[in-house]
Amino acid sequence: MTNPRYTPLALSLPATVPFVGPETQERQRGAPFVARLGANESVFGPSPRAIEAMAATDIWMYGDPENHDLRHALADHHGVSPENIVVGEGIDGLLGYLVRLLVGPGDAVVTSDGAYPTFNYHVVGFGGVLHKVPYRNDHEDPAALFDKAAEVAAKLIYLANPDNPMGSWHSGADIVEAMEALPQGCLLVLDEAYVECAPDGTAAPVSPNDPRVIRMRTFSKVYGMAGARVGYAIGAPGLIAAFNKVRNHFGMNRAAQAGALAALQDVVWLSQVQTQISAARERIAQIARENGLDPLPSATNFVAIDCGRDGTFAKAVLESLVDQGVFVRMPFAPPQNRCIRVSCGKAADLDAFAAALPKALEAAKA
Amino acid sequence: MTNPRYTPLALSLPATVPFVGPETQERQRGAPFVARLGANESVFGPSPRAIEAMAATDIWMYGDPENHDLRHALADHHGVSPENIVVGEGIDGLLGYLVRLLVGPGDAVVTSDGAYPTFNYHVVGFGGVLHKVPYRNDHEDPAALFDKAAEVAAKLIYLANPDNPMGSWHSGADIVEAMEALPQGCLLVLDEAYVECAPDGTAAPVSPNDPRVIRMRTFSKVYGMAGARVGYAIGAPGLIAAFNKVRNHFGMNRAAQAGALAALQDVVWLSQVQTQISAARERIAQIARENGLDPLPSATNFVAIDCGRDGTFAKAVLESLVDQGVFVRMPFAPPQNRCIRVSCGKAADLDAFAAALPKALEAAKA
Repeated sequence: MTNPRYTPLALSLPATVPFVGPETQERQRGAPFVARLGANESVFGPSPRAIEAMAATDIWMYGDPENHDLRHALADHHGVSPENIVVGEGIDGLLGYLVRLLVGPGDAVVTSDGAYPTFNYHVVGFGGVLHKVPYRNDHEDPAALFDKAAEVAAKLIYLANPDNPMGSWHSGADIVEAMEALPQGCLLVLDEAYVECAPDGTAAPVSPNDPRVIRMRTFSKVYGMAGARVGYAIGAPGLIAAFNKVRNHFGMNRAAQAGALAALQDVVWLSQVQTQISAARERIAQIARENGLDPLPSATNFVAIDCGRDGTFAKAVLESLVDQGVFVRMPFAPPQNRCIRVSCGKAADLDAFAAALPKALEAAKA
Repeated sequence: MTNPRYTPLALSLPATVPFVGPETQERQRGAPFVARLGANESVFGPSPRAIEAMAATDIWMYGDPENHDLRHALADHHGVSPENIVVGEGIDGLLGYLVRLLVGPGDAVVTSDGAYPTFNYHVVGFGGVLHKVPYRNDHEDPAALFDKAAEVAAKLIYLANPDNPMGSWHSGADIVEAMEALPQGCLLVLDEAYVECAPDGTAAPVSPNDPRVIRMRTFSKVYGMAGARVGYAIGAPGLIAAFNKVRNHFGMNRAAQAGALAALQDVVWLSQVQTQISAARERIAQIARENGLDPLPSATNFVAIDCGRDGTFAKAVLESLVDQGVFVRMPFAPPQNRCIRVSCGKAADLDAFAAALPKALEAAKA
């Protein structure tokens, strides 16, 4: 008996995982977390109308492979055409399809050092070569990204605005202005997963038909439906249609389709969550300051907290928090890894964080 | 402005879809279907315990990327190790990952002419070359598949048992015996999506650690959860681990994970659905005979009905059924396309089919 004959690319891939899930950590520590503040989920949950729509779904039926109703509602919401919208299994799923469409072995791709690891996972998974530029003052640096793309003849650039893991942001107008320097034939994937909790003007005011850019949005963050796996992309019709060549047409959960549609229509709930996120950011910042730490400004549903020393120190803080039952994460790359990253939570979650942080700092200093 | 620079493979791909969904057809005809009997869904629905588990899920949390609880329950259920199980976004999703791991441009893959189009979609999507062998008396032909695989040095063979779209089956022992002729280094993907409604002895009694075969199972058919998107594969640990190199780790819907776990545990519901499927198959066969048509024996949750003439005639029958609000499908390739394929339904669904069929036959003959 012989083993399957994998492709050379598959053989070359590491068996790494972009993220270790909180459930894995809970199993390892033998106890559930007291506060789940590490994955930038929305503990405030989805609209009750979304919950109702999901419960009312006949799950014995496959979802509509065209995502017709959701795609049309999203088009109305954004004032674009349904031909500008593709719906997929979270931004993660859509990034995978996008990379597959553009990136083959040896193709150059540009991102920031410390930006979204799942994007990198897809690029490596299709044989692409990652070129990374540093953050600039804890912000992604569009000019540096676009310069690097010109230098290496990149096919694709990843830019998150607002940024994860730092929570920083640029105005949408600044992004559009910087795009003047986008090299010919280089596609910008603009990940706007957190844009619904950013200040007005953060969403990039680009034409939906601009072939230079594709924007990613999600129901996983402010809409509170991470477990449902619904993301979408806005882009030029030709690019959007190309997803039909590779996507898993029947990949969407039918209840998730209905839930996302209902969530989109509940603007009151969205607004209330935005208020709660804003208050939680303030509270996290206050807890940080009370412990002599420096919270970074955030346009997301989390706050990066500068622990004041290096990555080793921040990691020790994080590990003690996790030991105490407070699930948080931290940036991967220096110098951003001097921070821990804390998602917005309800009062009880943040109380748990407030209670655990002094002990964590003490432990890290020891 | 220039367009994105797609890979040569992506540029070469057709913009086809494996299947047109029933919702698309409903939009085209401007009315909902009276009976939804075309996608081999289970109109009997999932276990009430699955529905309860899905409703009780906190959808704001991402699903466990390891699918730990479901994977362990499946391992117990099959008497295998959790290292033998990978869970994914339906068999469709898992087939995509499997093809990606094995098939690159020009690699040979073998299937039957008229077998599952979504598998073909994935093979073409990764640049593989499909080699097809004919059905033999409306059955997939393992010996011919394995011979062809040897001839073309195939990396992968697709074989569904029971078969879709014909509903025919081989005993598992016969499959295992035929596997003696599997060429070295050729992986058999054995799609057992319908095996829970097949006679005892249909599931192939292969060792879970046999590196020559990977078996696909699903919660979309007899478990009644097509809209949830939960499939799994059973195979040798090395192959199962390889999925971690390419799969969308956070791709599973959290409610679907919980629902599948609950569904697996409700053996009473499963047994009741099996009984209903069996009765519905009988009823479909009876309706066929009453109209002078020949129902084929079925080990699935559908029945292929031989309409007695060629593909053009069967297509006319199908079109009239669809016009009358009865959603059914039909095989793609001759000579199987002399049939229409009718999924099991409740009494009202089959009443609608019974009422529509005589008119459809009349229309087709005209």
